[in-house]
Amino acid sequence: MISVEEAQEAILSRIPTMGRERLHIGDALGRVLAEDVISLRPIPPWANSAMDGYAIRSRDIAHSSEESPCTLRIIDEAPAGFESAKTIGPGEAIRIMTGAPIPKGADAVVMVELTVRDNDDEVRVLKPVPEGEAVRRSGEDVGVGEKVFSLGNRLGSASIAMLAGVGRPYVYVVQGPRVAILSTGDELVELGEEPGVGQIFNSNSYALAAQVREAGGDPLLLGIARDNTEDLESLLKDGLVADMVLTSGGVSVGDFDLLKSTLGDLGNEMHFWKVRMKPGKPMAFGTLQGCPVFGLPGNPVSTMVSFELFVRPALMKMQGVAGLYRPQIAARLLHPLHKSPERRHYVRAVASFKDGEWTVNAVESQGSNIIHSMVRANSLIVFPEFKTDLEAESQVQVLILEGESALGAQPLPGEGPGSLVA
Amino acid sequence: MISVEEAQEAILSRIPTMGRERLHIGDALGRVLAEDVISLRPIPPWANSAMDGYAIRSRDIAHSSEESPCTLRIIDEAPAGFESAKTIGPGEAIRIMTGAPIPKGADAVVMVELTVRDNDDEVRVLKPVPEGEAVRRSGEDVGVGEKVFSLGNRLGSASIAMLAGVGRPYVYVVQGPRVAILSTGDELVELGEEPGVGQIFNSNSYALAAQVREAGGDPLLLGIARDNTEDLESLLKDGLVADMVLTSGGVSVGDFDLLKSTLGDLGNEMHFWKVRMKPGKPMAFGTLQGCPVFGLPGNPVSTMVSFELFVRPALMKMQGVAGLYRPQIAARLLHPLHKSPERRHYVRAVASFKDGEWTVNAVESQGSNIIHSMVRANSLIVFPEFKTDLEAESQVQVLILEGESALGAQPLPGEGPGSLVA
Repeated sequence: MISVEEAQEAILSRIPTMGRERLHIGDALGRVLAEDVISLRPIPPWANSAMDGYAIRSRDIAHSSEESPCTLRIIDEAPAGFESAKTIGPGEAIRIMTGAPIPKGADAVVMVELTVRDNDDEVRVLKPVPEGEAVRRSGEDVGVGEKVFSLGNRLGSASIAMLAGVGRPYVYVVQGPRVAILSTGDELVELGEEPGVGQIFNSNSYALAAQVREAGGDPLLLGIARDNTEDLESLLKDGLVADMVLTSGGVSVGDFDLLKSTLGDLGNEMHFWKVRMKPGKPMAFGTLQGCPVFGLPGNPVSTMVSFELFVRPALMKMQGVAGLYRPQIAARLLHPLHKSPERRHYVRAVASFKDGEWTVNAVESQGSNIIHSMVRANSLIVFPEFKTDLEAESQVQVLILEGESALGAQPLPGEGPGSLVA
Repeated sequence: MISVEEAQEAILSRIPTMGRERLHIGDALGRVLAEDVISLRPIPPWANSAMDGYAIRSRDIAHSSEESPCTLRIIDEAPAGFESAKTIGPGEAIRIMTGAPIPKGADAVVMVELTVRDNDDEVRVLKPVPEGEAVRRSGEDVGVGEKVFSLGNRLGSASIAMLAGVGRPYVYVVQGPRVAILSTGDELVELGEEPGVGQIFNSNSYALAAQVREAGGDPLLLGIARDNTEDLESLLKDGLVADMVLTSGGVSVGDFDLLKSTLGDLGNEMHFWKVRMKPGKPMAFGTLQGCPVFGLPGNPVSTMVSFELFVRPALMKMQGVAGLYRPQIAARLLHPLHKSPERRHYVRAVASFKDGEWTVNAVESQGSNIIHSMVRANSLIVFPEFKTDLEAESQVQVLILEGESALGAQPLPGEGPGSLVA
């Protein structure tokens, strides 16, 4: 049996990053750039006003004050979107709106709040302003030829704003992977059917589809393969249109485990089929006609934990994401834990951050069939293979499964009315 | 001018939670339940085997050992999905697969690794097991009539697994809000057009659409309204099909700011139009024919920060999410900050967690037109209205804008091969 790290390495070394596709920026949120983005224009494109006010020559108003304001002649108006054709001379001003280009001759803008307008033609300025006041220089945000993003950057909402700002409607991003999902087992019935004695609902397909979506992939649900070669072969073939195939169930030592032989008959090269961990020891990874195939265990918790440790990093790599793994933190364990040696355990747990410290405690039932344990957990305690005891109050390593819930974050005190929270 | 908290309260008190819609669980990831979910079935539905092995009577093998194994007669096979019709008597066993119902008469399962099978009819057991060994009790995960989720719970991937497990293909969730977005200004051109002198690309519509999507809403882009009553009125009317309308630009003191009057002509009740903060002082909120309307400022940074503070919490409330606000943490400021009094500043910043401590420093350019400042920031330092100085090394309050990047999380040391990261 290989270790978790050996398994991850065996997987990632065989997972290529996907090719690129051209997307409108309105559809590119969360995607990874497959090109460097060079701005062909400066932002702002021309010097413009940061305020509503009057474009002036700063030296003209150097001695103005509330007691003895300086009076300037208004020669034009510059609304946003229009450049005045006139040039400001001594004693002259142009009414200007936020964002409008600075007129020729002006070197500053005095905000409207510091002025008094007596009539259409004249404005009194109550205070001097330095040269450059309220002037946004051309290119102060982005210069011409500046590389604003690099290949591999992930596009958040501010990045989308930037792409729009530099006038890029389309960008090349890494393609999103399509992931075929099939559940195996004679004991499974689909949602909406009535299970007979010995039968249970197919929950793994939906759990995996949700995990695939969360990881940025596009799930393709193939349904249930019964425990016979024909069924398995037929559904596996259906799945080969995808960029990855996930199966759940059918990888333990039982007599009815046909998955490996069926995969082999189709030409699968199996890279490993057992990992030194719990839950999820039986966990196969192969390459079938160039397509990565994960044979995940059938117990719901084992399926989801195996996805987290092995499939999610692979999906991240396919999408060109730099950080393949979930964040890992050190936390103080609130109670002792015991296990047998040999396998590493991933213990479903609740981690929380308070007063500058992470603490963690395991959720109650750790059976690999107990879906509640995954619902309640926000993290996994990493219980090393060679250890049998983790003492209370000791520091342990914890994988954080959810960003926000486990983040060192209190609800905001006094920041908005808590009583209105639904 | 009102404070940020007064503005948030004024908004949230006028934002109702949306109605409910019925979704297939395959489409419900991330949504908020609009019903309690009671399980009508137990999970597991019947006592079943946790292992591949042999269902036995534990007292029959109480004295078995490797030296003197106990031999049992195999009377049937119980593959997953099928219940054996036979009852186990003294000295008998039934071959059983993981997940198969425990046959009548058996009280434990001995795993296949602890047995030797000599022929079709007999198995030798090498070790005793206690009563209940490898037996999953009916209902040990979920009991009949148990409330597995409550109204208001958000559905993660483990929740989807649970809903499938209890056989629920459909659930009621809170409807997703549709958010109309319009940009205002004569200076704007759409992406793909060629800006003339004085013109810039409409970036706010795309920034807001991305923020709406991140917050779980469905953006409806109305395009650009020019600075005239007819255009504004026409687009605002287009937006009233949505559950919320966002405008950007046209809310400052300038002569060309028609938004307020146009909204008023359409029957808008304006609740406030200025907030004591920077960036984003001009920020209007009204109710137009029952629809909440946010008049956001036009500078890209002001638009995005105002969305974060006011629109995002409103969208969370509409969707029934319990935590309306971004997480807030205390961090050590790495350099001094200065400002004028009166307005609260939200300073774009990079927060990081290392060695058990949060630190934060402001990004370089804080102009409200500098999109780069939002791209670089992962957080906002809250610089209180009454203060003018924040000293280096002092503790400051910080709003975390992104879950993962700012989380107290190092890349996993030795957890997977870093060199393979694309």
